[in-house]
Amino acid sequence: MNALKSYTEFIDFELGKMNFPNSPVELYDPLRYFMTLGGKRIRPILTLLGNEMFGGSKQTAIPQALSMEVFHNFSLIHDDIMDAAPVRRKQPTVHEKWNPNIAILSGDVLLIKAYQLLSESSPEILPEVLNLFNTTAVEVCEGQQMDMNFESRHDVTISEYIEMIRLKTSVLLGASLKMGALVARASEENQQYIYDFGQNIGIAFQIQDDILDLYADPDKFGKQVGGDVIANKKTLLYLTAVSKVTLEQKEILKQLHNEQDIGLKVKRTRELFDHLQVRQACKQMMHNYYDTAMDSLEKIAINDKHKATLIALAEFLIQRDN
Amino acid sequence: MNALKSYTEFIDFELGKMNFPNSPVELYDPLRYFMTLGGKRIRPILTLLGNEMFGGSKQTAIPQALSMEVFHNFSLIHDDIMDAAPVRRKQPTVHEKWNPNIAILSGDVLLIKAYQLLSESSPEILPEVLNLFNTTAVEVCEGQQMDMNFESRHDVTISEYIEMIRLKTSVLLGASLKMGALVARASEENQQYIYDFGQNIGIAFQIQDDILDLYADPDKFGKQVGGDVIANKKTLLYLTAVSKVTLEQKEILKQLHNEQDIGLKVKRTRELFDHLQVRQACKQMMHNYYDTAMDSLEKIAINDKHKATLIALAEFLIQRDN
Repeated sequence: MNALKSYTEFIDFELGKMNFPNSPVELYDPLRYFMTLGGKRIRPILTLLGNEMFGGSKQTAIPQALSMEVFHNFSLIHDDIMDAAPVRRKQPTVHEKWNPNIAILSGDVLLIKAYQLLSESSPEILPEVLNLFNTTAVEVCEGQQMDMNFESRHDVTISEYIEMIRLKTSVLLGASLKMGALVARASEENQQYIYDFGQNIGIAFQIQDDILDLYADPDKFGKQVGGDVIANKKTLLYLTAVSKVTLEQKEILKQLHNEQDIGLKVKRTRELFDHLQVRQACKQMMHNYYDTAMDSLEKIAINDKHKATLIALAEFLIQRDN
Repeated sequence: MNALKSYTEFIDFELGKMNFPNSPVELYDPLRYFMTLGGKRIRPILTLLGNEMFGGSKQTAIPQALSMEVFHNFSLIHDDIMDAAPVRRKQPTVHEKWNPNIAILSGDVLLIKAYQLLSESSPEILPEVLNLFNTTAVEVCEGQQMDMNFESRHDVTISEYIEMIRLKTSVLLGASLKMGALVARASEENQQYIYDFGQNIGIAFQIQDDILDLYADPDKFGKQVGGDVIANKKTLLYLTAVSKVTLEQKEILKQLHNEQDIGLKVKRTRELFDHLQVRQACKQMMHNYYDTAMDSLEKIAINDKHKATLIALAEFLIQRDN
């Protein structure tokens, strides 16, 4: 996906035009910092692509595309506080570099900024644009709350987990594509199909993310393999294992939970998961969501070249060879 | 202002119709709790009044009025975290009753909810409605940041302080009135005049608030007299005193800053302030902002009955007899 790089650069260039005021510097410096930490800018790219596929040009959906990235960054700043995450994109998080109060308030301003961008939409589509954005934004917050709840719950089901990742991350991918389609005045059906495509690819992507945590090639993987296991996170791998264990294996899982030797912890967990064929089960679920996404893609009234672009993007996101 | 009570009840009734989902309960229970803590609902009442004065009915500006109250409550929930405030309206704050993470996230949802309400505006005024709201919302955040900065600064000027209270609280009062006028399609000039009126009354109100902290009748005052002095807050009284002290009195002020006997601290501070005629100077400033508000009121093209309502509201807010 070399084309992706030029889109990322285009978005970075457009984001660079966003002028944050100089004062109060404590409010706007964190935003200047965080918005230039980088990333692939997947969400705004989805909006541009969704727009182009239905006849828009790269220029016609810029504010809406940027609003998706701005919203994503707002949610990262606030989530990082809630998750007490010290690092984001290899740099200190806002609450770590400044303090939690500044992270709360600069996040708030960023959410308002997303609405300022959306407000640039033509009046005739503005109500629909806001409706899509509002619904999605609330869902993302609900997903984050579910994720926090799961930390202290011991009865999380696989379907609850899927619903959590759907809300927390996948709806924003679907909405980003749909936003572009909406700006290009695609039909309601086409908007729905492209939304469904994005949402299901998003779920497949998150499942893949869970699988990679334990099964990635350590040389290619950017972070510590087994990080979720070490942190006792209730990922899909873990929940799938729990759904398959015997009473005896359940005891082993409990012991591993408290294992202090992290090398041993990761190794033994993988052995147990392998025995339970957890990876295969999760890959199957991922393929199911991928296939559902492809079913939606099939129905979208766009030409094959555009469909190929969406497939390439999906493949890139999911890296199915892993 | 008996009429106010019926407006408050009307707003409470309309707020009661806002349906928060049941799940995730950790996200929506805090909002149900906080939105029913009460208060006079001044901001939505201003929107309804601003609307009625330019020909609207009580029904025509409800979503916009509610959005002002919802935004105000969002900012209170987040400010309470930042200020580590344990109590709001005699009840535990959200971060205290639940936890800071829940207060961050439920506040975020409330801000989005404000936009959902605004999105119900007729499409032809929606861009202007959003523009007014976005500008105001950013200003309120900037005011909160300035307020936080002042805590650790020792060179805050009176004009910076006035700018802080203007942004943190007064622009929202001006915007609430203007929002109502905008929904009633008042002319741009009239919108500006009613905004200026509300903003200047807001500044006068905040100055009065500062004065009352130290000079209120203890029997009538709902909270501890001298609370700002005890907390070493840089109020207008304090900043005015600082602008008037001799080097010798500056030393006294420094000693009072560290005085542990709070009764003595409040008494001695008041004696010093009285000697410096701080109260009179602040009252003079308050009257100046009040008079400026009245100048704007004079220019608004509404009938005398409506002007009398705005004057009664201003008097009620400022309680000039204190």
